[in-house]
Amino acid sequence: MSKPLDKDAIAALGIEGGWTMGLPDCVRYGDLDTYNHVNNKVYHAWFENVRVLYINHMGIQLNDVSPIKPVVRTATILFDAPMFLNEDYITLCKTSKLGRTSFTLEYAVWCDGAIRVRGDTVMVMLNDAATATVPVPDSLREVMIARDGAKTA
Amino acid sequence: MSKPLDKDAIAALGIEGGWTMGLPDCVRYGDLDTYNHVNNKVYHAWFENVRVLYINHMGIQLNDVSPIKPVVRTATILFDAPMFLNEDYITLCKTSKLGRTSFTLEYAVWCDGAIRVRGDTVMVMLNDAATATVPVPDSLREVMIARDGAKTA
Amino acid sequence: MSKPLDKDAIAALGIEGGWTMGLPDCVRYGDLDTYNHVNNKVYHAWFENVRVLYINHMGIQLNDVSPIKPVVRTATILFDAPMFLNEDYITLCKTSKLGRTSFTLEYAVWCDGAIRVRGDTVMVMLNDAATATVPVPDSLREVMIARDGAKTA
Amino acid sequence: MSKPLDKDAIAALGIEGGWTMGLPDCVRYGDLDTYNHVNNKVYHAWFENVRVLYINHMGIQLNDVSPIKPVVRTATILFDAPMFLNEDYITLCKTSKLGRTSFTLEYAVWCDGAIRVRGDTVMVMLNDAATATVPVPDSLREVMIARDGAKTA
Repeated sequence: MSKPLDKDAIAALGIEGGWTMGLPDCVRYGDLDTYNHVNNKVYHAWFENVRVLYINHMGIQLNDVSPIKPVVRTATILFDAPMFLNEDYITLCKTSKLGRTSFTLEYAVWCDGAIRVRGDTVMVMLNDAATATVPVPDSLREVMIARDGAKTA
Repeated sequence: MSKPLDKDAIAALGIEGGWTMGLPDCVRYGDLDTYNHVNNKVYHAWFENVRVLYINHMGIQLNDVSPIKPVVRTATILFDAPMFLNEDYITLCKTSKLGRTSFTLEYAVWCDGAIRVRGDTVMVMLNDAATATVPVPDSLREVMIARDGAKTA
Repeated sequence: MSKPLDKDAIAALGIEGGWTMGLPDCVRYGDLDTYNHVNNKVYHAWFENVRVLYINHMGIQLNDVSPIKPVVRTATILFDAPMFLNEDYITLCKTSKLGRTSFTLEYAVWCDGAIRVRGDTVMVMLNDAATATVPVPDSLREVMIARDGAKTA
Repeated sequence: MSKPLDKDAIAALGIEGGWTMGLPDCVRYGDLDTYNHVNNKVYHAWFENVRVLYINHMGIQLNDVSPIKPVVRTATILFDAPMFLNEDYITLCKTSKLGRTSFTLEYAVWCDGAIRVRGDTVMVMLNDAATATVPVPDSLREVMIARDGAKTA
């Protein structure tokens, strides 16, 4: 896995949509199922990998005493076209919607000039004990709106 | 993994919702992530396992010269509550909606008297070459409506 | 997954070798690779699942303040015959060798009257900080020798 | 995943051992287990990914009508030190031993100047029907000996 791409690097590749993080990779044997396609479940792993990096880059540590903890509440995925062994691709991510205590991460898998798979996850911001929702911090809201173009409700 | 449960066996356990297939299992170490929770991706594997059995029981063979091939077009999942090592659970499945060339499979993970995770996949019926949609066969439609209670559009 | 089998239950099935824990299961779609065989990596997951149960049943908690922590130092695996979708099998486990600060767990996958895959892991007993080896406790040594038939060096 | 490295590129990084293929990558969230370490099973996936590329680069197609098919007969792995999220690493591979109908692939995970995990797989060359062993072709033998330094029995 190469290093994550930022908004400018993604745009420089001619990828439209204002994506703010991208993770370049290549389809491996273990991603395939009996159809010689990338298995449906594997895209969720790709989205998870970019999500964890995205959240870390936002300054939130996931495995510690952080006072806030974003967790996945719902996930959706739409399969446009199959993927095959050794194809190069980029998993893309940005915040598309922003609520008071939640936000929506949008994902896409870009390969050979087109989007093959899209998805999103609604993230709920919890306190460290995971017992109650807490507001998305203002510093994150600003980045999500200004950089990612997140829509507020 | 025990053998799949049918509609009557599921109802006999007091599980509501008219589910027509259930797969009993137990959370394993490999299902966990760094939070000691079942990882989000793992539920997609559980849904896939019951989906493949459900489709096979419908008389459709997945890896052969079958003239029809149901593929996943979209998947959604809603996380209600976490799951932990060694918990016993049942992954439930039924057809909830039926179109001309597609149908919706609904899933739930039942554990200790409550639903922890829900989801669905829209399945599109393709011809063997996967080049065009084909109608859901009448014999399947009858079972999906009469047994599963699938709503038609 | 059914509940683990103990030594008597395993012997009652006519399985030879003095195995002391067995985990019955069934091959799922997600276990398969592009050859429609169970993928090589998957057997390591099956061994891990039974290993974690075996260690827990020995009275060692794995995710806590336990003063001892057994970790995998080496793993070997031997593939005798492939496995296929929907086959029922039992993953078997016992301690076969016992040193002062280490022990060897032996595994096998039994299916339809024969062993398909065998393996072992050398486990090293570490202190909680994982900074030094510690002796295998006497209470465990007794069970490993008397029940499992472990050979001492 | 970056493109595979060849023997010269690996040596140019100061990595000793005469490795002939290397796959650079970075530890992802999904590689971790409840200890925040890369899970033991995951190294088998890394070895598989480089093995499939290695065999393809040898001119053997794995999913087709190829007259020869190398399959894994045994696998061993030795864990020297744990790995953590976001660490960059290279999975290394070469043929270390060569028999008439089998060969041994050796693997290592190199990270931050040292080997963290080592392993090998004995590969048996089968005919397309996987019913009998066949000799390793002379063209492969030459490369394995001259380039990889494989020892013959």
